[in-house]
Amino acid sequence: MKRIGILTSGGDAPGMNACIRAAVRAAIAHGVEVFGVRRGFQGLMDGDIFHLSRRAVSNIVHTGGSILESSRCLEFENQQGRQRAAASISKAGIDGLILIGGDGTFRGGALLAEESTTRIVGVPGTIDNDVFGTDFTIGFDSAVNCAIHAIDRIRDTALTFERVFFVEVMGHHTGFIALHAAAAGGAEDLVIPEEALDVDAIARKLEEGKRAGKKSAIVVVAEAKMPGVSYRIAQDIGLKTGFETRVCVLGHVQRGGSPTAADRVLGAQLGTAAVQALLDGETGKMVGMLAGRIAHTPLRDTWEKPKQLNPDLRHLVRLLW
Amino acid sequence: MKRIGILTSGGDAPGMNACIRAAVRAAIAHGVEVFGVRRGFQGLMDGDIFHLSRRAVSNIVHTGGSILESSRCLEFENQQGRQRAAASISKAGIDGLILIGGDGTFRGGALLAEESTTRIVGVPGTIDNDVFGTDFTIGFDSAVNCAIHAIDRIRDTALTFERVFFVEVMGHHTGFIALHAAAAGGAEDLVIPEEALDVDAIARKLEEGKRAGKKSAIVVVAEAKMPGVSYRIAQDIGLKTGFETRVCVLGHVQRGGSPTAADRVLGAQLGTAAVQALLDGETGKMVGMLAGRIAHTPLRDTWEKPKQLNPDLRHLVRLLW
Amino acid sequence: MKRIGILTSGGDAPGMNACIRAAVRAAIAHGVEVFGVRRGFQGLMDGDIFHLSRRAVSNIVHTGGSILESSRCLEFENQQGRQRAAASISKAGIDGLILIGGDGTFRGGALLAEESTTRIVGVPGTIDNDVFGTDFTIGFDSAVNCAIHAIDRIRDTALTFERVFFVEVMGHHTGFIALHAAAAGGAEDLVIPEEALDVDAIARKLEEGKRAGKKSAIVVVAEAKMPGVSYRIAQDIGLKTGFETRVCVLGHVQRGGSPTAADRVLGAQLGTAAVQALLDGETGKMVGMLAGRIAHTPLRDTWEKPKQLNPDLRHLVRLLW
Amino acid sequence: MKRIGILTSGGDAPGMNACIRAAVRAAIAHGVEVFGVRRGFQGLMDGDIFHLSRRAVSNIVHTGGSILESSRCLEFENQQGRQRAAASISKAGIDGLILIGGDGTFRGGALLAEESTTRIVGVPGTIDNDVFGTDFTIGFDSAVNCAIHAIDRIRDTALTFERVFFVEVMGHHTGFIALHAAAAGGAEDLVIPEEALDVDAIARKLEEGKRAGKKSAIVVVAEAKMPGVSYRIAQDIGLKTGFETRVCVLGHVQRGGSPTAADRVLGAQLGTAAVQALLDGETGKMVGMLAGRIAHTPLRDTWEKPKQLNPDLRHLVRLLW
Repeated sequence: MKRIGILTSGGDAPGMNACIRAAVRAAIAHGVEVFGVRRGFQGLMDGDIFHLSRRAVSNIVHTGGSILESSRCLEFENQQGRQRAAASISKAGIDGLILIGGDGTFRGGALLAEESTTRIVGVPGTIDNDVFGTDFTIGFDSAVNCAIHAIDRIRDTALTFERVFFVEVMGHHTGFIALHAAAAGGAEDLVIPEEALDVDAIARKLEEGKRAGKKSAIVVVAEAKMPGVSYRIAQDIGLKTGFETRVCVLGHVQRGGSPTAADRVLGAQLGTAAVQALLDGETGKMVGMLAGRIAHTPLRDTWEKPKQLNPDLRHLVRLLW
Repeated sequence: MKRIGILTSGGDAPGMNACIRAAVRAAIAHGVEVFGVRRGFQGLMDGDIFHLSRRAVSNIVHTGGSILESSRCLEFENQQGRQRAAASISKAGIDGLILIGGDGTFRGGALLAEESTTRIVGVPGTIDNDVFGTDFTIGFDSAVNCAIHAIDRIRDTALTFERVFFVEVMGHHTGFIALHAAAAGGAEDLVIPEEALDVDAIARKLEEGKRAGKKSAIVVVAEAKMPGVSYRIAQDIGLKTGFETRVCVLGHVQRGGSPTAADRVLGAQLGTAAVQALLDGETGKMVGMLAGRIAHTPLRDTWEKPKQLNPDLRHLVRLLW
Repeated sequence: MKRIGILTSGGDAPGMNACIRAAVRAAIAHGVEVFGVRRGFQGLMDGDIFHLSRRAVSNIVHTGGSILESSRCLEFENQQGRQRAAASISKAGIDGLILIGGDGTFRGGALLAEESTTRIVGVPGTIDNDVFGTDFTIGFDSAVNCAIHAIDRIRDTALTFERVFFVEVMGHHTGFIALHAAAAGGAEDLVIPEEALDVDAIARKLEEGKRAGKKSAIVVVAEAKMPGVSYRIAQDIGLKTGFETRVCVLGHVQRGGSPTAADRVLGAQLGTAAVQALLDGETGKMVGMLAGRIAHTPLRDTWEKPKQLNPDLRHLVRLLW
Repeated sequence: MKRIGILTSGGDAPGMNACIRAAVRAAIAHGVEVFGVRRGFQGLMDGDIFHLSRRAVSNIVHTGGSILESSRCLEFENQQGRQRAAASISKAGIDGLILIGGDGTFRGGALLAEESTTRIVGVPGTIDNDVFGTDFTIGFDSAVNCAIHAIDRIRDTALTFERVFFVEVMGHHTGFIALHAAAAGGAEDLVIPEEALDVDAIARKLEEGKRAGKKSAIVVVAEAKMPGVSYRIAQDIGLKTGFETRVCVLGHVQRGGSPTAADRVLGAQLGTAAVQALLDGETGKMVGMLAGRIAHTPLRDTWEKPKQLNPDLRHLVRLLW
């Protein structure tokens, strides 16, 4: 292992830069040269590759976004695109590649690993936490904290007449952000794609809350790949209950901002582990953190195997509202 | 002046509690008893009035919302409601009343001042800043800072393909929050009710920005009493330009949270000034801050006279994008 | 189990209220009555005990401090004090007691468990993380995030002449906060009580950093029960290296503030687990979270068994600076 | 006016980058070329001058620190140093220079204006607010908000036994930050260099607060060019009253962080005004904001004329504690 390349792909996640910093410095400490690839797979195909020194990753540990920029790249889904990428890698003399991203990134990485001789190691960097093989993805803790700040602020505006606030959060096709934000924010109810939407049940719960003396209620809604879906749900609930409803759609606010301590520490641990995995000859694997230990998972498993919401936490939200 | 009552009315605004604290302690320092009225005009009609000591307003200077709770109250708009309120005031022995709120609050207050012998002084407490007679209202600075935190976070998510982010902010029928957030956030463009919406002009500007090398753009949209309006504008812009669009609707997030230093200081200054105005025999007036000095404005003027956006700031947003 | 009491003791930690809320509501869901004890062991001895309803713990999930207030209580260290407490417990009809706090709290709790028939379960609530039997204590994540916000801000002030910033953090007699803050903050070096202070080694590292082009450096210092100790260390380093030094002592800033999502979720999980443990007949145990699972640890072990800093994280700080 | 140079000098202040961005883009809009000078007067003497495009100041409006870096420069205090600077300016073809900084910066600027033909305009950028000719300096609002976040967090840690917290803030030789932080934070007392330290008076006030039922107290202390001075004051108070004392020294934390909305707007307004002043042929002046309007003040006046603390605000702190 002489030369390692690093790229970020898919949606930005806070902590990606802490991960890049760690991978660069860990590799250099092992005598390996490091190259950054700009704009993910697109830059890999285009040969947009540049040398990364220790100093190049100074003062980024606390920043959001990715210094390597990210992209979504359709061309990489066909073999021709991946052959262009393999040629760039070969030309740059890179014998190991670290991919920081989510399931789309790992799909591309798995194919590249099968079709080329470059060792490929993935690092789970996405706010959505929808990746099998790691308890948490880099960026998830930051996104959840962002969501609860919004919930906390809404909680202050307790007018005397009944109101139901719908706070829509991200999470791709999963309810991880919504579940953790609801648990941490003390939300009254939760709409997640893992469960059938039952407007009647929500309405009953809100009415029960009103009878118990609650002045307002907060329902966390996972966008479930349909941004703005809360407006329709709010309208249905409003018609059914007569409560006034208000909607807050956080959107990309959740993708940005300075990473939390946990995301920076996780980024540092996984970035370092990815370098170690490459040095150990691994390929086609993702490094993750399971119960406090580094774990290697075949890239295919990361999206093929289902990752479950924590059922105890789901129960707590029902119990403690 | 023996007994002063205080109430908050209309939408919550950060800094209301700092204002209440100041009014209570300033009044007590002048030997005046203070009573809180719960839930605004509704509580005033219902006689929901209680004694406030110096200690009752401890540890609230930094909190959002209002310890007196707020409400919107239709019944107070007819004379019968106001007569009930006048009876409560009389029964409680209150000879001066401080109303913290916005234009709806002052409309009620002006009528009450005309119809009763109680002295009435208003304090501008609303995030919208849409009140003539004060440079800034209590809560405005907090709401603008809330909005720019969202803009800052979105700024981090700079993917390589073109994207336009629409950040929808509050402001009732005005563009104050939007203008200040756009100026402070470095937004590319601005949609405010004071100006006709020109989708073509926005589209041209975004295309010009793309040619100049910008990777993404942020447009701040004032909700203008139509929450969710950004979705339609985003769709129009998307169809016209082909850019991907994303929407963030902050909603009530802007009403909550700990007040900024400026809102707490303004709250303290105006709360104290309201007590002084009552002691000086004023009634039917709002205390505000104009160019650093306390100013008294007839309550009617606060909503009848137009308050202009700062034209220099509007110009800066056009110049500096 | 008919009646449960809850108290918080020792230094405040963010997330204590989320824990109290969870314990109260989980107990009520199991048909158990709940009583709050004010001011920790002091209130227990004084019989300062009151009924807690579901509504009494509304709107506290996001607040710092403890609604039950906390205290440090010397009298409880002698048997006579504990007998007074046992009498109060008996009088209130409490048959299970939840103690939220750190090692001082658990020492008292272990003695009380031995000397009385009341079941006692502890919950680790302290920013210091110095408790065996749980990966993290409630409040630790919040304190670390507080520390890195300070480090991040200092990082902005990069003047061109050489400067070394010393950021002093809490942690009682341990370096947990310092280690995690240094790892997450990207600090150049670390002074913790687990390692002998080597001023020469720090000086060499800082000079090496200067040669490598660093414009400033941040050293995280654990206060190690000597608040203000950084001034002496800074002076020594300044004399040895000639660098200008600056000190920031965060102090109690780290104890307050709204808890992070992780601390609220942990608080909810451990509060619920404490109720379950009491229902299951446990006593003299602490509930903690080890590798994602609830774990029961004898109270004596929580302070007698050493809790190690994560050696991998220590290594990362050395590797990545 | 063909070519404008910009530099930042003295301690960093949040909002400097928003000011630089505004000056660059306003100048370009007027057809003027803009050059950045690195590291303040040091870079001016060394000829460290580079071209600034509109794109060069993208994505900086929300960042702390200064993209031009700052320095303190002794050599510029003698005429020889200033002649080197004048030569650099001449060589770069710069005919107007914008200096962003505080009194030290303006002293140098006034001399340079007298000794050279380059037009010089100053912009007040310092957290200390100790500059005559502007109501507020760029960075002051951010520093005050930083200080109150610390005070707010400390306020959460209300143990039952008496404690006095001393929060030490910056402000150079003035009490502006301390006064505004005390007013906004609801502090019990205040130590500022504008008033003789009266330990007995503070002790009496704290004891009065205890009798009135306060559980803890916060005293804001201006460092007054003696960082760490709070330790001595805390010790004196502790000996006199018997209260436990705790100290928090915020230090450079106050200089960093993302600027508040008000500092960004002020930065944009003054940066634009500085360009306009140069175009209008002004030199040896500082642009400031007085009562909402741009004001020009001779550079000498900015440090020679005394700037008073707001006496009404001082009174409020005494009244409302």
